[in-house]
Amino acid sequence: MIIPVILCGGAGTRLWPASRADTPKPFLPLVDGVSTFAMTLSRVADRTLFAPPVVVASAAHRHLVEAAAAAVGTNTRLVLEPAPRDTAPAVAAAAAMVAAADPGATMLVLPADHLIRDGGAFAATIASASPAVERGRIVVFGIKPDRPATSYGYIAPGETLDNTTSAVARFVEKPDAAAAARLIAEGCLWNSGIFLMRSATAIAELDRYAGAIADAARTAVIGALDDGAVHLAAAPFLAAPRISFDYAVMEKTAVAAVIAARFDWSDLGTWSAVWEIARKDAAGNAAAGDAVLIDTRGSYVSTTRPKVGVVGLDDVVVVASDDAVLVTDRQHSDAVKALVTEIEAAPEAVIGDFVRHYRPWGHYQSLALGERHQVKRLVVVPGGRLSLQRHARRAEHWTVVEGVAEVTVGMTMASLAVKTLAVGESIHVPRGAVHRIANRGTVPLALIEVQTGDYLGEDDIERFEDDYGRTPA
Amino acid sequence: MIIPVILCGGAGTRLWPASRADTPKPFLPLVDGVSTFAMTLSRVADRTLFAPPVVVASAAHRHLVEAAAAAVGTNTRLVLEPAPRDTAPAVAAAAAMVAAADPGATMLVLPADHLIRDGGAFAATIASASPAVERGRIVVFGIKPDRPATSYGYIAPGETLDNTTSAVARFVEKPDAAAAARLIAEGCLWNSGIFLMRSATAIAELDRYAGAIADAARTAVIGALDDGAVHLAAAPFLAAPRISFDYAVMEKTAVAAVIAARFDWSDLGTWSAVWEIARKDAAGNAAAGDAVLIDTRGSYVSTTRPKVGVVGLDDVVVVASDDAVLVTDRQHSDAVKALVTEIEAAPEAVIGDFVRHYRPWGHYQSLALGERHQVKRLVVVPGGRLSLQRHARRAEHWTVVEGVAEVTVGMTMASLAVKTLAVGESIHVPRGAVHRIANRGTVPLALIEVQTGDYLGEDDIERFEDDYGRTPA
Repeated sequence: MIIPVILCGGAGTRLWPASRADTPKPFLPLVDGVSTFAMTLSRVADRTLFAPPVVVASAAHRHLVEAAAAAVGTNTRLVLEPAPRDTAPAVAAAAAMVAAADPGATMLVLPADHLIRDGGAFAATIASASPAVERGRIVVFGIKPDRPATSYGYIAPGETLDNTTSAVARFVEKPDAAAAARLIAEGCLWNSGIFLMRSATAIAELDRYAGAIADAARTAVIGALDDGAVHLAAAPFLAAPRISFDYAVMEKTAVAAVIAARFDWSDLGTWSAVWEIARKDAAGNAAAGDAVLIDTRGSYVSTTRPKVGVVGLDDVVVVASDDAVLVTDRQHSDAVKALVTEIEAAPEAVIGDFVRHYRPWGHYQSLALGERHQVKRLVVVPGGRLSLQRHARRAEHWTVVEGVAEVTVGMTMASLAVKTLAVGESIHVPRGAVHRIANRGTVPLALIEVQTGDYLGEDDIERFEDDYGRTPA
Repeated sequence: MIIPVILCGGAGTRLWPASRADTPKPFLPLVDGVSTFAMTLSRVADRTLFAPPVVVASAAHRHLVEAAAAAVGTNTRLVLEPAPRDTAPAVAAAAAMVAAADPGATMLVLPADHLIRDGGAFAATIASASPAVERGRIVVFGIKPDRPATSYGYIAPGETLDNTTSAVARFVEKPDAAAAARLIAEGCLWNSGIFLMRSATAIAELDRYAGAIADAARTAVIGALDDGAVHLAAAPFLAAPRISFDYAVMEKTAVAAVIAARFDWSDLGTWSAVWEIARKDAAGNAAAGDAVLIDTRGSYVSTTRPKVGVVGLDDVVVVASDDAVLVTDRQHSDAVKALVTEIEAAPEAVIGDFVRHYRPWGHYQSLALGERHQVKRLVVVPGGRLSLQRHARRAEHWTVVEGVAEVTVGMTMASLAVKTLAVGESIHVPRGAVHRIANRGTVPLALIEVQTGDYLGEDDIERFEDDYGRTPA
């Protein structure tokens, strides 16, 4: 029995504006309306081959993991990271947990954002790695390149170990196109990021090459809280360096082995890759959502909110969401990363930019803006609490639409009253009143805030208390 | 003194999604943030040449006209159409009004959606038409073509009348490209839709060739209400055939004359035309709103709501609004009309399509949608009133954000209570309650509606009374 360890990290900025902090790439319905995380759960659903998976995800995405697991009908062991630290700490934490129960157990590390359609070939390829794994190897699955891609790492196979497995001669980080072509000619494979190893091997190699990470993960597992999910202890876990398992272990270990995958594979790393695997019409267009295409060919058009009309263009990508729109040539879609870098470097607008703004307690977004009013949607994560605050120039009116709100309102500190509001219930916060919103529940709280006043800027705020240290000193 | 008659009709579907039923093309800030209507007012602001203008507009756009006129500082005589009937009825109504005060007055008919920057050349060209007008001619201003456009009417000049003016030999409706090239070679001009004539001439020619329109307009003017604006009487005005002044009169009359315009001119008929006149950066891009362009040239990008990122494309048009996004090649931008036709032919979505839906009382738009909630923005025109209605499966919570609402709510017909809500005030409408919203004021009423319930479709509605005849028989 193999224990799948599914890693849900990876922001996937190349799939902006669909992939975002609150709905990262593994949870997007990219493949015929299904997420790659759900497909990954299904891929390891055969309980004669695979134990229930360990899923490592950000605490902020717990509800996404649980909803998908429930939809697929899979039991998972959910391990929550207080914040992402790349794959080495995640693998280390999973290995520590798995080894505590069974040091001899075999772990299959799987990124949650890959597409593999041929489950039979996948299972067969994994099974073929077992002899090497039993001899203490860490087997990485290599993908036969179909182009000189510059966005993947390459693996050069070395000495033959058995009829499917070779030792790894070396790892080559993302090469330029010319180097990539040479590597392909030499028989190198892409590094899929899928690994099979015994948990004891993982721990031994982590201890040898990344002792700080191994220690941090072990301490975080020992100090974890379990409320149906394992919450890794924040202080030790966040002390682990942010580094990938490839860098931390694979490029150094003497036990690396590689097997060429016999399954199809895409990491859906760009919108072009998403277009490649999408269902297309006779004109080569893949469209999702409220889109109308006229005289358009070879294009990917997706919208979750605005109606999109595309006229007279070929080979474009148009992705529209509630706060952002991407328009690019399909061949340039890996340049989206540069776009996101530029966008993230820009200062936030003070008011009414309609963009989702992430805060320690959740996020907010302006839905509508007038001369003297603004409508916002606020989402507060379980356990999240906004600062105790006051606005000099606006009133606010809140209506709860998801979850349960604990609201504190009073015209003075002495008269603060606490109320609980359920879905459909409202409260008015007069101009100048002290107020606070908290989510004491286990599901996200969403509320609609209608602001009215003569100035609506984010800087009209006086903070009295804050869980996240944002009060002025 | 010339009386300008500014026609604000024209939906301008080619500028979708910016031009819409509630903000048609003349009122869009297309030229350095200024609307062509405001520029048209400024063009005739010299009171030594022009009397205060008569503005003919849809009653639904009164607030747009008045706001622009106030911003420019111009007095206007505002004539409101109950619904648009094309230019012949509009010119006929203006002529009837002008002639009633002064039968010898000269009218300058000006579409509100054209761009003319050279005010001096404009005034000089208009002045040069006076001799012909005084001899009873209707002078149309012709534009020297710079390309074989297929979207304009052409005018073939005939016999010379004076050193600037010719009789019109014939009008040619939108030709194909080959015919357009031949017309240009023959010295034909584009029909600008700008006319100069005495009001008595207009009335005589309308009576001769379009008697039904002349009669309808006269009756509508006689029956008009005046509350600071002239509200044309609906029954007679709407009986007028929907036809242009060109078709109804100019193509038939014996008094048509043409003068070649010595001013610059654009009808901003396509996004390409808007790009042509826009301020552009070194890469030839014109961008407005929250847009980031990377490796992009020769493009027009405008957004009033979502953040827009364009990567690796040349010569495209991207226009994003709160409910729709257009993406097209600049050279194909006149195909937008086909897109709008296709979009308008599609059935309305039942729920959560984020598109503005126009109703007799105003419009509504979904701002956010969840499993069991929806947020809408409703705008009620002055005098508008929604039906008295009830929903079986949702509660509604309203907060007024602009104007004043008269709300009627009760759990039974016998217990209905009427309340007046100002900005920032709210009311809860429980599931099953009978309710109604009215705008008794003179400015639009906007309110935010938060719906909660297990079914949110538009078809969950029971109507008891309706001003617009929408109650079931």
